[in-house]
Amino acid sequence: MTPSNAPFSRAEYDRRLSKTRAAMAAAGLDALFVTDPSNQAWLTGYDGWSFYVHQGVIVTPEGEPIWWGRYMDMLGGRRTCWMDQSNILGYGDHYVQSTVVHPMQDLAQHLLARGFGNRRIGVEMENYYYSAKAHAVLSAELPDAELIDASALVNWQRLIKSDEELGFIRKAARISDQVMRTALERAEPGLRKNDLVADIMHAGITGVGDDWGDYPAIVPLTPSGLDATAAHLTWDGAPMRDDEATFFELSGCYRRYHAPLCRTVFLGRPSDDMRRAEEAQLEGIAVGLEAARAGNRTCDIANAFMGVLGKYGIERSGRMGYPIGLSYPPDWGERTASIRSEDETVLEPGMVFHFMPALWMDTWGLETTETILIRDEGTAEPLCEFDRKLFVKA
Amino acid sequence: MTPSNAPFSRAEYDRRLSKTRAAMAAAGLDALFVTDPSNQAWLTGYDGWSFYVHQGVIVTPEGEPIWWGRYMDMLGGRRTCWMDQSNILGYGDHYVQSTVVHPMQDLAQHLLARGFGNRRIGVEMENYYYSAKAHAVLSAELPDAELIDASALVNWQRLIKSDEELGFIRKAARISDQVMRTALERAEPGLRKNDLVADIMHAGITGVGDDWGDYPAIVPLTPSGLDATAAHLTWDGAPMRDDEATFFELSGCYRRYHAPLCRTVFLGRPSDDMRRAEEAQLEGIAVGLEAARAGNRTCDIANAFMGVLGKYGIERSGRMGYPIGLSYPPDWGERTASIRSEDETVLEPGMVFHFMPALWMDTWGLETTETILIRDEGTAEPLCEFDRKLFVKA
Repeated sequence: MTPSNAPFSRAEYDRRLSKTRAAMAAAGLDALFVTDPSNQAWLTGYDGWSFYVHQGVIVTPEGEPIWWGRYMDMLGGRRTCWMDQSNILGYGDHYVQSTVVHPMQDLAQHLLARGFGNRRIGVEMENYYYSAKAHAVLSAELPDAELIDASALVNWQRLIKSDEELGFIRKAARISDQVMRTALERAEPGLRKNDLVADIMHAGITGVGDDWGDYPAIVPLTPSGLDATAAHLTWDGAPMRDDEATFFELSGCYRRYHAPLCRTVFLGRPSDDMRRAEEAQLEGIAVGLEAARAGNRTCDIANAFMGVLGKYGIERSGRMGYPIGLSYPPDWGERTASIRSEDETVLEPGMVFHFMPALWMDTWGLETTETILIRDEGTAEPLCEFDRKLFVKA
Repeated sequence: MTPSNAPFSRAEYDRRLSKTRAAMAAAGLDALFVTDPSNQAWLTGYDGWSFYVHQGVIVTPEGEPIWWGRYMDMLGGRRTCWMDQSNILGYGDHYVQSTVVHPMQDLAQHLLARGFGNRRIGVEMENYYYSAKAHAVLSAELPDAELIDASALVNWQRLIKSDEELGFIRKAARISDQVMRTALERAEPGLRKNDLVADIMHAGITGVGDDWGDYPAIVPLTPSGLDATAAHLTWDGAPMRDDEATFFELSGCYRRYHAPLCRTVFLGRPSDDMRRAEEAQLEGIAVGLEAARAGNRTCDIANAFMGVLGKYGIERSGRMGYPIGLSYPPDWGERTASIRSEDETVLEPGMVFHFMPALWMDTWGLETTETILIRDEGTAEPLCEFDRKLFVKA
C-alpha cells in the first residue's frame, strides 16, 4: 500500500527497484547502501530535511528497501516512505555529531544481522552525504565485507524519466516560467537585489495553481555586472544599476523535481560585443537542440554549440549541461552524464538535460539555457516556454 | 588589503588564522585542508554556491591561506576572499563530476609543489564536502604524506564569537523576529502551507532596513498536526486546519550568520495535554537559561531542562541544542559541542547556542526555542525578542 504522502505509484517504485537491482547484479553487489538523498527519495519516497545527519537506504536482492536514519526521523520516514514500517530503522540520538560513537556503527549491526557481514556491499564513495569518516568507520566495523564503490549506480538508473516523472518536470517548468517572468518584470535600476530575490522565491514557492512550489536544490543565482563574470555568487543588498547585465539562474521545483532555466537582462543598451555573443549563443543553442536527438551522443550537442562559437571567434571551455530531475541541495544536477566534448553518453528518449551553454566573459556574463527532453524522434523539446533572447530594459 | 566584498576586518581574519594555526600546532599538523564551506568562509571570506563541486582552503604555518576550487569559481574567489589573487587556485573543468579524473589529483599536485608530499596534513574526514572518494584519491596521490583526521578542528575555533560576529548574529536575530512575526500573523485555517512559506521566505530575504537577508542554511520547517510529530518534514500545498498545532523552525540570516528561533501556533483550543507540555517547556527553558552561565557546562543546561520535564512526567531523549553562527547548507549548527547530558563543554562568554528543547509527541509537536549568548556574568541572553509561549489563534 502506498501511503497518501508518497508521490508516485507503487508500480513506479517497483520499476525503479528492478532497475537498481539489475545494476547491482551487473556490478556483482550483494547489497547497496544509498546515501544520496535524491536516490533515497527516488527509491523509497523519503522526503525530509534530515540529510545533514547520517541516513540512507539499504537495497538487497529481495524484499522492500530499508530506510535507516536518526531515530527522530523515523517518524518522517513512516510518513513519506511507501514501505512497511518494519523497514524504517532508527539509531539513537547519542550517535548524532558525537566524537565518541558514529552512526555507521549502528548501520553495521543491521548489515551484520542480515547476513551481509562477509558480502560485497556497494557504497556511494563520491557523495556529499557519505563522508570519508563514515567509510572508515563502516570499513572497520565490517572487516570481512568488501565495500565496493557504487557511486552514481542509482543515479544512472534515473537518467531516463518515466511518464510520471516527466509530468512532475513539466509542472516544475511551468513554475520556472512564472519565476523567470517575475524576475524579468521586476528588474529595474535601483531595486535592491535581495528584494528581487525575495519576489523570485515567493513566486517559486507559490507555484502555479494547485501545483505548489517546493524548494529548489540551489538558491536563485542573480549576479550583475562584474559579479556575473563569476558563475556562483549569491545576492547582496546592492541596488541594480544602469548599463549592467544580470543573469538569472533559476528553477521551479515540484515535489523535488526541477526544470532549470537561465535568462539575462540588460538595463540600458548592451554593447556590440554582448549583442554579438547573444547572436552566437542563440545560434549555438539552436544547433545544439538539432543535435540533441535520440541516437546522438552528449558530446554531439557540445560540439555543435562549440562549432558556432568558433565561427564567431568566442572562446569557452568547460561543460555545458547535465541531466536533471529529482534533487536535494546542494546540486540540482544528477551527476552522471555531462554535455561536454569528452562525454559520449548515447541520448535516449526520456532523458532530460539542463543544456547550459553560459558565457562568462571578462566584464560580464550571459546565461541563456533550456531544460530539454530527448524525444523518440526529432529534436529535443525545450520544456519551458520562454522567449530565448537577451532581455533589454532601456 | 581587504576588498570591499569581504565581510570582516583584516584583524578579524588574522585572529581566526592565528587560532587555527595554534590548533594545528597542537595537533602536530604541517598543513590543513579545509572543506567545510563555513570554515572556508570563516578563514578567507569565500562566499558562493559552489560547494557542490570539490573545493577547499589550504592553511600552512605561514603566509596567507590558499583557496582552491573549480577554475570558473576562481573569479568568485577573487571577488570574495581577502587574500592576494596569487593565492586563489583553480582546476580545469574536465575534473568536474568526471569518472576518469578527480579534482583531488589536482590538489595533490599543489601540495607536492609546496613541499607537503611527506608531511602531516589534516583533513576534515567528517564533513559533507570531503567524500570517501576524495579521501581515497588524495591518499593515493600522496603516498608519503600522513593524512590526519582534523574534523571540526576549525569549527571548534569558531565556538567563541568575536564582537564583529556577534554584531552579525544580532542582525540575523532581528530578521528572525520579523520572519516569525510574519509566520504567526499569517497563519490561519485554509491558508495553503506553501503560501505561508512563500511569505516567510520573502520576509527573511527582505531583511530589516539596510540589513538585507541572506539564505538560511535550512529551509523553513513548518509542519502541522501529525506531520509535526516528525522533526524535519518540509511543507506541501495542504491548507492549514482548525485544531492543529504547527511549529515554525526558522532563522533569519545576515551574511551567512544565523539566529534560529522556533515557536508553535495552535489554530483553535489546545488540549490540556498540550497546555501542560507548554508549561513544562517554558519552565524548563527558564531553568535552562539560568544554568547557561560561563563556567557551567553544556550538560548543565540539558540536565536543568530535563529535571523540569521529569517533574511533569514528560519523556524526552536526544540532544537539545548546538552552537550556531556562520553556516552553509545543509546545517546551520556548528557541529562541535551539543547541549545534552553527556556533553561537558565548559561555557565561555561569547558562545552562542540554539537552545532547542522541542517536544515531539505521539500526535503533535511543540517547538519553543531560543538563540542564546553566554555572557561574562549572569544568565544567557536570548538574542531574539519574541514572546515565549504557545501562540493560540482561536
